[in-house]
Amino acid sequence: MSSTFGDRLKISIFGESHGEAIGAVVDGFPSGEEIDFTELQAFMARRAPGGFGSIATPRKEDDIPRFISGIYNGKTTGTPLGIVIENTNTRSSDYEKIKKIPRPGHADFTAHIKYSGFADMRGGGHFSGRLTAPICAAGAVALQILKRRGISISAYITEIGGISGEKEDMYELIRNLNGDSVGGIIECRTEGLPPGIGGGMFGLESKLAGALFGIPAVKGVEFGSGFEGSRKKGSENNDSFIAADKKVSTVTNNHGGLLGGITTGMPLVFRIALKPTPSIALEQDSVDLNTLENVKLKIEGRHDPCVVIRAVPVAEAIAALVLMDVI
Amino acid sequence: MSSTFGDRLKISIFGESHGEAIGAVVDGFPSGEEIDFTELQAFMARRAPGGFGSIATPRKEDDIPRFISGIYNGKTTGTPLGIVIENTNTRSSDYEKIKKIPRPGHADFTAHIKYSGFADMRGGGHFSGRLTAPICAAGAVALQILKRRGISISAYITEIGGISGEKEDMYELIRNLNGDSVGGIIECRTEGLPPGIGGGMFGLESKLAGALFGIPAVKGVEFGSGFEGSRKKGSENNDSFIAADKKVSTVTNNHGGLLGGITTGMPLVFRIALKPTPSIALEQDSVDLNTLENVKLKIEGRHDPCVVIRAVPVAEAIAALVLMDVI
Amino acid sequence: MSSTFGDRLKISIFGESHGEAIGAVVDGFPSGEEIDFTELQAFMARRAPGGFGSIATPRKEDDIPRFISGIYNGKTTGTPLGIVIENTNTRSSDYEKIKKIPRPGHADFTAHIKYSGFADMRGGGHFSGRLTAPICAAGAVALQILKRRGISISAYITEIGGISGEKEDMYELIRNLNGDSVGGIIECRTEGLPPGIGGGMFGLESKLAGALFGIPAVKGVEFGSGFEGSRKKGSENNDSFIAADKKVSTVTNNHGGLLGGITTGMPLVFRIALKPTPSIALEQDSVDLNTLENVKLKIEGRHDPCVVIRAVPVAEAIAALVLMDVI
Amino acid sequence: MSSTFGDRLKISIFGESHGEAIGAVVDGFPSGEEIDFTELQAFMARRAPGGFGSIATPRKEDDIPRFISGIYNGKTTGTPLGIVIENTNTRSSDYEKIKKIPRPGHADFTAHIKYSGFADMRGGGHFSGRLTAPICAAGAVALQILKRRGISISAYITEIGGISGEKEDMYELIRNLNGDSVGGIIECRTEGLPPGIGGGMFGLESKLAGALFGIPAVKGVEFGSGFEGSRKKGSENNDSFIAADKKVSTVTNNHGGLLGGITTGMPLVFRIALKPTPSIALEQDSVDLNTLENVKLKIEGRHDPCVVIRAVPVAEAIAALVLMDVI
Repeated sequence: MSSTFGDRLKISIFGESHGEAIGAVVDGFPSGEEIDFTELQAFMARRAPGGFGSIATPRKEDDIPRFISGIYNGKTTGTPLGIVIENTNTRSSDYEKIKKIPRPGHADFTAHIKYSGFADMRGGGHFSGRLTAPICAAGAVALQILKRRGISISAYITEIGGISGEKEDMYELIRNLNGDSVGGIIECRTEGLPPGIGGGMFGLESKLAGALFGIPAVKGVEFGSGFEGSRKKGSENNDSFIAADKKVSTVTNNHGGLLGGITTGMPLVFRIALKPTPSIALEQDSVDLNTLENVKLKIEGRHDPCVVIRAVPVAEAIAALVLMDVI
Repeated sequence: MSSTFGDRLKISIFGESHGEAIGAVVDGFPSGEEIDFTELQAFMARRAPGGFGSIATPRKEDDIPRFISGIYNGKTTGTPLGIVIENTNTRSSDYEKIKKIPRPGHADFTAHIKYSGFADMRGGGHFSGRLTAPICAAGAVALQILKRRGISISAYITEIGGISGEKEDMYELIRNLNGDSVGGIIECRTEGLPPGIGGGMFGLESKLAGALFGIPAVKGVEFGSGFEGSRKKGSENNDSFIAADKKVSTVTNNHGGLLGGITTGMPLVFRIALKPTPSIALEQDSVDLNTLENVKLKIEGRHDPCVVIRAVPVAEAIAALVLMDVI
Repeated sequence: MSSTFGDRLKISIFGESHGEAIGAVVDGFPSGEEIDFTELQAFMARRAPGGFGSIATPRKEDDIPRFISGIYNGKTTGTPLGIVIENTNTRSSDYEKIKKIPRPGHADFTAHIKYSGFADMRGGGHFSGRLTAPICAAGAVALQILKRRGISISAYITEIGGISGEKEDMYELIRNLNGDSVGGIIECRTEGLPPGIGGGMFGLESKLAGALFGIPAVKGVEFGSGFEGSRKKGSENNDSFIAADKKVSTVTNNHGGLLGGITTGMPLVFRIALKPTPSIALEQDSVDLNTLENVKLKIEGRHDPCVVIRAVPVAEAIAALVLMDVI
Repeated sequence: MSSTFGDRLKISIFGESHGEAIGAVVDGFPSGEEIDFTELQAFMARRAPGGFGSIATPRKEDDIPRFISGIYNGKTTGTPLGIVIENTNTRSSDYEKIKKIPRPGHADFTAHIKYSGFADMRGGGHFSGRLTAPICAAGAVALQILKRRGISISAYITEIGGISGEKEDMYELIRNLNGDSVGGIIECRTEGLPPGIGGGMFGLESKLAGALFGIPAVKGVEFGSGFEGSRKKGSENNDSFIAADKKVSTVTNNHGGLLGGITTGMPLVFRIALKPTPSIALEQDSVDLNTLENVKLKIEGRHDPCVVIRAVPVAEAIAALVLMDVI
């Protein structure tokens, strides 16, 4: 139970949403890898709040990560990367008044129990989606290194609120939520992985899933045909092998690029299901943890009606960090 | 990438399907826990081959685990538990002839690449479903310890081949596969967990998912409302808190007992999607790895048309081992 | 191979001597522990440079650790502690000119090979004694928590340059080094540990030793009678058990408080041997790594003729962090 | 706190001295490595009891390890190696009567507390020197793999009972112990390691020391000049670099092949201090744990007056396993 993952590449995440700063330590990057900070910042911008007009939360932050160690003359040193992102523009008073009234769907209640009331849960504290910012900063470095090795990772939304068709429909849905919220599904596809990566009984699916469930709001992970594949016949779901140009591949990719937790060389494909943002503007039932009385709760502060959009680069970042760990 | 999981309770799985023996070492059980071997063997029998008439694979084995360390006078010693299950009744010749022709949907190809052809892949080798036997033996011990602490774990099939209704329909489907196979979905429910267990950014969902994807054929894991929850509104998916008898709980359980990777005290509910058994009796397309020619493959040996049934106790075993690790 | 240690309390150290900042992330402290920052700063001051008149290195820094997460209202939150110490007053030009000439006894050469020349080795980089500052900051928190549980840790010098008698003789030796340096031995004693802590085959001695060898310059670790005990007879080295006041203890403590890697309840005693500071003002033989020519090297910058004095609180910090991990 | 070590090569040790069997699981060996079982058995024989005439313990066992997984057609498969060594010829009655009277210097007392009296401590149980047999079996495999890569590991006794000169004097000392026992010091030297292996703040010294303290009776570990080096001047202890034949090495090797936890390419040299065998035939003072009365204890069963001789291959085995982990 920790905020750390990875074996050869160890990632430690720290910070609270409304504390002084958040950040990460990443121990195990190879040395001599040049970092393009403009590209890194562009990647970070994809998850930054306030970047999607009326859709995302209005809290604006620059989210400029400060790399305080592990980079020298623009290149990785091979020693631990230290990343710090200062917290600015926090409006804690929004949350102070609901401190003892846990928001449904949030970690307020469970963190209250686990940390005996001492956790700094303003804005969701350590369990806030804001903690994905250092993951993105670390992942951006991993993505650049992998790209140089011919491996590209791309995530995209396949469903929002059950809608899987046109982007316009999704935006329309989000704009008409009237204080409610929606979740969705993100698919992530990695190309360029050689076959034979991973393995052991608890292989690449285990590692990826373990890290992906660290993204707040993720409640499901599947690889390849996943849950839908469980409804197929073996003859439909099995992917035939085929040889061409002295290379073995499969005709279809229901296995999502992994058999036995080891890469086949086909694109590695996974999907994550994100629950609807728990913070909604509608009145909800909750409990006053001091008096144990049932109370009505109306969450005032800003919130994001659909975290799926901002989670897309996070999925890529996690995939990149896990793959860097095993390659 | 390993065959080991767990932090405070470390589980190491070893063995190949047609090697001398398979087994597990479990390091970290508390001392003084009495083991009921009759109950343990009954639990093991639930996953044993040959136990479901015409449905399961005809390979019959007794699968009697031998506990060679860690138990003294019928109680756990607190030092590592050593479990060995001898392999008997293996018919390797079935597999020898297809050694260089990977079976679609199996780890044959990826293991061949990763281990440079040296892995003992007879019967699926280390990636065989048979490796879940030591998991069950270890899990049976964990289940007995948890039960004594008021925690019960129960898994059951919710879907086979897309059918979620009557058991009779499921069996009917399996009986009429004519050499094809089906997958399915297993739900597992843990009751009696106190709130406040788990936590950190990579909490209990991460740990459970990481271990569950070690079960061969698992391609998806979800908690609570999972993928379906991602299609709901926040107002529908959020679980209201309610206080009664000085205890806080939730009215519904879309969160599956976990918020922020920490238990709420509600039943912990997850589902795993298992792909259809890759071994089917129908002719399939594959590749001869020696000549790189495209060939037809017809798998002869015994196989199980639906591994879902035998995987039910495995889901319970994994849940028990992970929960023992964190409690 | 990493800059991370600990299982239930995970400590990640990052930073380079002349980079932007150094720090640590500590994941696993209990929540609700009040931190006395005055006491913490006083502890830090014991290892700070410039604190011993002419003896320690003249580089002066305030070494004020900034706790950017994990503390709220003066108490630990239970989520990861983030510690950052800015680097100020670095004079990198001293080191630039010797960049390609490894200093004997330092990690310059080995880091050059391992990190292919990309590590920031100014001032010893990630391998500098300066990296013990965040260890002390983290350890100070652990020490305060342990103290509240009745456990006190105290380290002291037993030898400097082979002199084990009067402190005056040790200082006299250091003052007359004329550009040379000395090492020494530190003993650390923990009182108040209950019996039964630790265990497994790789128990508390393994954990402590693994962490202690992370202190730069440490080349030996021993527990209890250690190396000297290996020269005794069993009848001399065995510690008789004795019962008094319903408590079992031992008459002597040659075992250093640990039998089988488990505490006996007697004081836990270990000693670490630190080599003489490798940076000396005398001319030494080295190699130009660019030309592979043998060259003479004279180290100009500041240096500490005896790191033993400043390492005393570091030994306490490491002991505290390891003990927090296992209690 | 566990009986497991290693990151990329994970070693799990299990078993009790007088239980059914002892063994190890080693997860992470490369595939395709041929094992010479004759050589392996010869290596095992070096630590086997009864092999040194009157010196070692008279308990005779064949200690034939059974490799039940991870080897196929005489070569490693790349999947976990399962090793089982049956316990035969145990005479538990010797120990039964002293069950509640802890032997001074043994883990009897601490294990009793930690495991609440449930550990199987017959013959020292899990803390017996017998548990080094599976370490040797695993290490023998590692040694053969390393040898093929040009890396040789050799351990030898440098001191027994304080005598460091002629072997004859050491044997003479052991023969005249009259029921008492002696300890000693073993030096281990690894040649052929390339420079640049290891690193991080907790580098190769940390890893080696952590594993070496798992050997029962080890109470001290030092690298290179170690404790003696702490008594030298920097000018004496520093090893000058020298270039010859386009290769950088050092003139002396006080650093023991490691600087900053990274190999220099010079021989890796460490020493371990083993305490005298705690089991002696002389009467000792102990406590009856049931009545808490002070009692006299006379250990009857067989015992080894000097475990140093049998520990020599164990030091090599541990070194080989740790080096396999990091290479």
